[in-house]
Amino acid sequence: MNALNLETVGLSSDRSKLVILDQTLLPNEIKYLELDDSEAIYEAIKKLRVRGAPAIGVAAAYGIYVLMRKHAGADKKDFASLFRKEKEYLNSARPTAVNLSWALRRMEGVMDDNISFMSIPELIDKLGTEADEIMREDISLSRSIGEHGFSLLHHGDGILTHCNAGTLATAKYGTALAPVYIALEHGWNDLHVYCDETRPLLQGARLSAFEMQTAGVDTTLICDNMASITMKRGRIDIVFVGADRVAANGDFANKIGTSGVAILAKYYGIPFYCLAPSSTIDMSIRSGEDIPIEERDPDEVTEMWYKHRMAPDGVKVFNPAFDVTDHSLVTGIITEKGIAYPPFDKAFERMGIV
Amino acid sequence: MNALNLETVGLSSDRSKLVILDQTLLPNEIKYLELDDSEAIYEAIKKLRVRGAPAIGVAAAYGIYVLMRKHAGADKKDFASLFRKEKEYLNSARPTAVNLSWALRRMEGVMDDNISFMSIPELIDKLGTEADEIMREDISLSRSIGEHGFSLLHHGDGILTHCNAGTLATAKYGTALAPVYIALEHGWNDLHVYCDETRPLLQGARLSAFEMQTAGVDTTLICDNMASITMKRGRIDIVFVGADRVAANGDFANKIGTSGVAILAKYYGIPFYCLAPSSTIDMSIRSGEDIPIEERDPDEVTEMWYKHRMAPDGVKVFNPAFDVTDHSLVTGIITEKGIAYPPFDKAFERMGIV
Repeated sequence: MNALNLETVGLSSDRSKLVILDQTLLPNEIKYLELDDSEAIYEAIKKLRVRGAPAIGVAAAYGIYVLMRKHAGADKKDFASLFRKEKEYLNSARPTAVNLSWALRRMEGVMDDNISFMSIPELIDKLGTEADEIMREDISLSRSIGEHGFSLLHHGDGILTHCNAGTLATAKYGTALAPVYIALEHGWNDLHVYCDETRPLLQGARLSAFEMQTAGVDTTLICDNMASITMKRGRIDIVFVGADRVAANGDFANKIGTSGVAILAKYYGIPFYCLAPSSTIDMSIRSGEDIPIEERDPDEVTEMWYKHRMAPDGVKVFNPAFDVTDHSLVTGIITEKGIAYPPFDKAFERMGIV
Repeated sequence: MNALNLETVGLSSDRSKLVILDQTLLPNEIKYLELDDSEAIYEAIKKLRVRGAPAIGVAAAYGIYVLMRKHAGADKKDFASLFRKEKEYLNSARPTAVNLSWALRRMEGVMDDNISFMSIPELIDKLGTEADEIMREDISLSRSIGEHGFSLLHHGDGILTHCNAGTLATAKYGTALAPVYIALEHGWNDLHVYCDETRPLLQGARLSAFEMQTAGVDTTLICDNMASITMKRGRIDIVFVGADRVAANGDFANKIGTSGVAILAKYYGIPFYCLAPSSTIDMSIRSGEDIPIEERDPDEVTEMWYKHRMAPDGVKVFNPAFDVTDHSLVTGIITEKGIAYPPFDKAFERMGIV
């Protein structure tokens, strides 16, 4: 297996089933699920079998397409009503996932725009084409981010990443790891990727290390607290991380621990870049102070996968899922539109981000 | 249970058995082992049932005492020969543990100095007295470190610690956590201790969080990568960590991740102290560059306690057990002799450390 056939989300060859790589089984088992009923698709999104905002959007678009294919014989009124029912149901799988509702609304718009003058079979084809387009756009966007990031790399570079913002989080390429895939396409085989394991849920160990190794990249796993010595030993030339939300001033929220990595990179003089689609930049948010931080279940910290307790009963746990990295620590923010350098608000404006 | 009856190592009331708290079972089970044969004592040291340099020293001293008690009827030549055999055997349990061989040599010295003019029963009593003295000295030393550290605390302070340098690592009080126990003795009930879980072996979650909670201290467990947000939110007023070895210039080696905590503390303007016995300071080592760093088994990172794989097979792992914190990041180094401030080499000399 190589980078090009590790697909996160797609359609079966007869286009009748949503196909996803079950990420809850990684890295121990590579299992693709073929799904064509509502409950199974809902469950796959809810249980994070498919995760990463862009990948969830693509899965939702293809998901509602395969569900509606089964209603080719319905009349238009029933079809529209069934569509909305399926849409509401899938949308409730992860209520706060922006890309989920965005993709479903986009698919609904296609139905609303075309149902009056198309036959149901024609409309179903149109929905399939739209889902293909959502996937194609996602790949194109990730590819652009990857190319801009690739322009910063040198042969033999050591790259540190945190959490997973790779091909497993998108339709292809990812964001933070996209430059590495572009380098592979250019025939570079001499990059070294270091993956923070990323406690508590270990996305770095389970997902980033897995996809980089699968792509044939020289991959080293470290515990989060080993980033300092790894940098000190000169093994890291550049840091690439993703972002969940970027404020107008360049502060950004990302997986817990990202701000610590940024502080270490600053201390050791290592360039630190955030890679994300421009849609992640929210110009209505002035600074990171205004980004709410979700706190999650203490059990994520006190128990590992197989529910073996490793902390005293009843101990208090602080378990923030994200942290905010101050813009003063950020060398640049890479989107599909190019690389923004400080002052970020001015750079974002020049790039036409509003 | 409170801080005062959580004993790490000691003797049974009839002085015939070494008693240790089995730390491999913490925090899930509090089980004391009573040991009086060589194999069991060797195994307890080797398998880290008792760990922490000072605690190992005390266990070894009491260990050889209880073993030699069984030979009260031996003649002097046999007694000396049996002593050396037991000593070599126990010493091989952890060949690199300095306190293990130090304590055994000290006990051997007592035998050599007294065997010619004491009866064997008298000599056995003398060995018991020496082991008591080793324990008493360790407690006194930790208590002094704790008092110096306590002088830096204010009511309501938040204290961050890394790994375990608490009462579980010594005969009593610990080093990094000793100031908290001294505060409790003064009736302070308003300190907040934050424990980094300390991957890969989770000594912070399993041991520090356990002993602080057992002592009735307000204790919060965080993943290592949450230290940055915890500091940013103003919850940490001071950082206390232990040390395995301190160089003449104040650079020191401690559990992996300590240097990262120091860099974060510097960034957020939080005082950072290293607490250790003065015997840990090695004036023959000029800087941290000369301290070798042990690299350990990759399985510690890729698999948790119950051997469930959480990283891809064959992935490279960088698993250093310690890192070196640069003296420029250290506010002060606290030993039983007082608090050293930069420049550390001059301060150590003034304290009579050679």
